[in-house]
Amino acid sequence: MLNTIYEPIQEDLVQVEDRLRSVGEVDFPQLSKLLDYSLKSGGKRIRPALVLLSGRFYRYDPSYLLPMATAVEILHTATLIHDDVIDNSPVRRGRPTVNKVWGEDKAILLGDYLLAKSQELVAETQNLRVIKLFAQAFMTLSRGELAQAVNAFNLAQSRQQYLQRISAKTASLISLATESGAILSQAPEKSVKALKEYGHNLGIAFQIVDDILDFIGTEEEMGKPIGSDLAQGTLTLPAMFILERYPEDNPVTRLFQNEERQKNIGLAIELVRGSSIPGECYAVASDYCARACHNLNVLPDNACRRSLIELAEYVVKRRK
Amino acid sequence: MLNTIYEPIQEDLVQVEDRLRSVGEVDFPQLSKLLDYSLKSGGKRIRPALVLLSGRFYRYDPSYLLPMATAVEILHTATLIHDDVIDNSPVRRGRPTVNKVWGEDKAILLGDYLLAKSQELVAETQNLRVIKLFAQAFMTLSRGELAQAVNAFNLAQSRQQYLQRISAKTASLISLATESGAILSQAPEKSVKALKEYGHNLGIAFQIVDDILDFIGTEEEMGKPIGSDLAQGTLTLPAMFILERYPEDNPVTRLFQNEERQKNIGLAIELVRGSSIPGECYAVASDYCARACHNLNVLPDNACRRSLIELAEYVVKRRK
Repeated sequence: MLNTIYEPIQEDLVQVEDRLRSVGEVDFPQLSKLLDYSLKSGGKRIRPALVLLSGRFYRYDPSYLLPMATAVEILHTATLIHDDVIDNSPVRRGRPTVNKVWGEDKAILLGDYLLAKSQELVAETQNLRVIKLFAQAFMTLSRGELAQAVNAFNLAQSRQQYLQRISAKTASLISLATESGAILSQAPEKSVKALKEYGHNLGIAFQIVDDILDFIGTEEEMGKPIGSDLAQGTLTLPAMFILERYPEDNPVTRLFQNEERQKNIGLAIELVRGSSIPGECYAVASDYCARACHNLNVLPDNACRRSLIELAEYVVKRRK
Repeated sequence: MLNTIYEPIQEDLVQVEDRLRSVGEVDFPQLSKLLDYSLKSGGKRIRPALVLLSGRFYRYDPSYLLPMATAVEILHTATLIHDDVIDNSPVRRGRPTVNKVWGEDKAILLGDYLLAKSQELVAETQNLRVIKLFAQAFMTLSRGELAQAVNAFNLAQSRQQYLQRISAKTASLISLATESGAILSQAPEKSVKALKEYGHNLGIAFQIVDDILDFIGTEEEMGKPIGSDLAQGTLTLPAMFILERYPEDNPVTRLFQNEERQKNIGLAIELVRGSSIPGECYAVASDYCARACHNLNVLPDNACRRSLIELAEYVVKRRK
């Protein structure tokens, strides 16, 4: 399905893959191995695709869009590597994490190297506005991750706090991708704003679906264990629904109070799966996707606009 | 002594401190506390001082130099925070590290936030060349740290490898400070090169002295335990001298082979202290400082050039 959506930018995505591969070409064999392992991991490449699709409405210029698309994917990869250290995650995308294979120290430093590399690539856009946005999106993202860390196992969190947190930790980078694609193709300000908003709404929907799949997905599809948010003490939308429905007593409250964690994670997953909670969460996600599609109305109608709409539809349908 | 050296840029350094303080002014109390703790830690501020001193030879423009000076110090702070996680260090500058007080997860994320913040500040220079240099210096630094990590407890390292590693992990940032100060003050290319080289040589000397002080300093002066390089398996110049002098048997070889680590660290420290090794290492450091001073010959003679020379002298005299 993604192949069809990516069809208008397929050739440029191949070039992004080439650029990601060439990041690993350094004369330091151990670093080279780490870079290859983390950048050829077969992610969905949604963020670079969004840069390229968003850059196709006005003056399409691959000499700026390609480094930007590559930079956004590298920044994303770096933050995943650091996340895996923080969560002590053993598996990502069906493979052992860098921290498990090479140790936490190498994973932290590889993440830092990739952060620096992403910054160097952004400088290739020669666009000061985009360079500043990139730094700010990364600040917002780190802030969102910190908010998640300081609120671990905190039951007193509102839906609004949840939305703010996922906006910071996920939507920031996705709206950076769409906004920068627009800016680098010299889109009029109205279209820059529309694509930024599209990215924001898509990013919120994307994270809500991720949070649903952590309850109803399978380890095989997700490439990582199910219930990992609960294991980390991260209160997501499905868990909030449990708290709202069963305020007196429920497995989420119990596990957040450190009672029989593994057992209560299992019970919480069962409870969500056997309830209407997934459907209600999907309704929230779909609402954000609808907003995202609505944002696109000001853009010229072309194959890329259709791809962006299909991507919004894909985001709620995906199983991984 | 540093006060006298910093005299020509004292007022601007106060402004850098103000800017560092204002980084902590965010509407997220936990983050604000972490930022204050890490940025008000009373470091020597050598890197921002070098940006400001290097920017005083041609068109001095604080609107670009101040954000750059602040950015370099923040990047340095971020890398120290990540280093402390990697080394599991309990103490830095006489205070508990961020990882010890708030945990590894917060320390990694705080480091990332600061990396992003430094990047945002560099964008304020509006200078694409400097933005790119900043990213590249950070890449080199991470690479140097990785080289150190993969070579931990490896006895087969040459003096040249040591110099390459400290050039990457320390001199990169110090020469970034001097080179960017020159560029941002529109120095002629010959002077840019001279200040870059000065920073490189000063940085090498600085790290060699750091490595000596890890043997002959005191915990009180250094603000951290002595012998920490050996404890991490980092082969530094004084340890290399031990290997050269006692190839048959010595405490460094033994501890690197995992024999009675704590005891052999103590023996290695004693051995260095009671030998001519510190003097020989200081001679290497002094040679780099002499080269650094020589690099300054092409610059106009003013109070800042004298400060840069005094700083090179300070670097080998310092006890912390």
